[in-house]
Amino acid sequence: MGAGSWGTTFGLVVGDTGHEVTLWARRPELAAAINATRRNPDYLPDVELPPGLRAVSDPEEAMDGAYAVVLAVPSQLLRRTLEGWSVPADAHVVSLAKGIELGTGRRMSEVVTEVAGVEPERLAVVTGPNLAREIAARQPSASVAASVLEATAQDVQRICHTPSFRVYTNGDVVGCELAGATKNVIALGVGMAVGLGFGANATASLITRGLAETARLGAALGADPYTFAGLAGLGDLVATCQSPLSRNRTFGEELGRGRSVAEISHATRQVAEGVLSCASVQQLAHEHGVDVPIVDHVAAVVAGELTPAEGVRALMSRAPGRER
Amino acid sequence: MGAGSWGTTFGLVVGDTGHEVTLWARRPELAAAINATRRNPDYLPDVELPPGLRAVSDPEEAMDGAYAVVLAVPSQLLRRTLEGWSVPADAHVVSLAKGIELGTGRRMSEVVTEVAGVEPERLAVVTGPNLAREIAARQPSASVAASVLEATAQDVQRICHTPSFRVYTNGDVVGCELAGATKNVIALGVGMAVGLGFGANATASLITRGLAETARLGAALGADPYTFAGLAGLGDLVATCQSPLSRNRTFGEELGRGRSVAEISHATRQVAEGVLSCASVQQLAHEHGVDVPIVDHVAAVVAGELTPAEGVRALMSRAPGRER
Repeated sequence: MGAGSWGTTFGLVVGDTGHEVTLWARRPELAAAINATRRNPDYLPDVELPPGLRAVSDPEEAMDGAYAVVLAVPSQLLRRTLEGWSVPADAHVVSLAKGIELGTGRRMSEVVTEVAGVEPERLAVVTGPNLAREIAARQPSASVAASVLEATAQDVQRICHTPSFRVYTNGDVVGCELAGATKNVIALGVGMAVGLGFGANATASLITRGLAETARLGAALGADPYTFAGLAGLGDLVATCQSPLSRNRTFGEELGRGRSVAEISHATRQVAEGVLSCASVQQLAHEHGVDVPIVDHVAAVVAGELTPAEGVRALMSRAPGRER
Repeated sequence: MGAGSWGTTFGLVVGDTGHEVTLWARRPELAAAINATRRNPDYLPDVELPPGLRAVSDPEEAMDGAYAVVLAVPSQLLRRTLEGWSVPADAHVVSLAKGIELGTGRRMSEVVTEVAGVEPERLAVVTGPNLAREIAARQPSASVAASVLEATAQDVQRICHTPSFRVYTNGDVVGCELAGATKNVIALGVGMAVGLGFGANATASLITRGLAETARLGAALGADPYTFAGLAGLGDLVATCQSPLSRNRTFGEELGRGRSVAEISHATRQVAEGVLSCASVQQLAHEHGVDVPIVDHVAAVVAGELTPAEGVRALMSRAPGRER
């Protein structure tokens, strides 16, 4: 459900396993173009889609009789979108969206359960280093399917594990979703450091300390600390921070070069997810009394309260201590 | 002790804190050139050395009256070098070398204790994302000083913590040294993937799974699992894997492009540390019954038993499972 770059790519992966895929596109003209050209001209023009994939623009038609409903709607639109749908009561539901809802501080699976009445036992989250273009090119990568019920994670693993897209099961939905949301904020900070001209030591240090503060927040929310050292945590963060294909890293670079959020958003005609999530992650951390200095400084830069150079300087001048 | 790129840079960092530094260079002509030009023409020609730093070529003169003796000799030469020295019995000893000794499987601090009779309580290991050129340029970075005695780690922290080189103390010497040695092997594997044309998902997956197998080996050796998620583990690994300044990553890229170990060593006139360490890390893992598929495959490629493409394919076709 969602024919953006990642939704289309995930459909291609499931198609590669031999399963039939119905791709829901909001705009009927995009659905028609996908069916006519076997490509997604807007988001993945260079890749031929598998024969078992067809696109529709009616959400009920897309979900009818589905074994699994895969949600690939942007995170801040998920609630509003789901409110208009009736998700089949017997299907598995897979969430691909990475983010924390603004205002409520809810994880995406919580929004799905709340709005669509989906029991956590039939819900899974697929996350990890998921740069869509590389996966669509069948380059090797690894991801996790996380569910509170191992059988559900295995069912989802079966429909999307391919020779190039390697899927591990995981039982920690909270940790996987938190890691996916926070990495966009850390990637903004890493991008700022790159934009300021800093090298691999600085970005690696930011990645490491950023993951440490994510893990602290995760511990407060009941997540398994090992999740943050795995594909959903470290793996996704490293891929996002090192790839020039990442919107968040690129947005951060532009901030580091001195442009404002408004200027960059205007020029690129989109807002990076981390720009929205930094406020919700920060709020979640403060509610639980968790110290998140990198998120705080990124949020302050995004809000225009600090320059990127001041933010990095403030981070580096904190008193030295024990590593944890 | 050691006027290579990292030894010289660490001397510069200590000099920046206002302490006097005596830099030992094996060759008298290099020591003379450093004193005459205030630069290290062979390893760090672009950076002016601090006023409190002088170079000597007599090791006893260098160590005489030292508060801390810093060892920056290549890991496979450490034993032979230390055998000719007498390290002062009251000085702190800091090890900068990353590697596992071939044949014995010893960590560097074990070699220091064995050969120089240094008690573990006055020994510290400084490690982390340590790309020397960036540190010499005073770019921000973070590292750890690890010792079994927190007071020793703090003493070492005091002589090398600067506004740009941020040092955290850590109590896990075993984990810090193991991480430092294994990261070179993983970086070779990541380099191979890059040389084969793969992108950020693949390298991030290799980094994540590589760190997971390092942590498994660490657990068998009594290390703290959190070390591998910290600066000595994740931080150093990410910096090494993403920087074009890293010899191991670059060596792996050349392997991935189809050149042999002999060809690359001949062309670059040096052997990357990971090429030597893969056998010793593999031996250590097998002795402790730990599964290390990435190290095994890198070792097989280095030994010429697999091509890089076969190695990556074999890694990706392992049966899917739970993440841990």
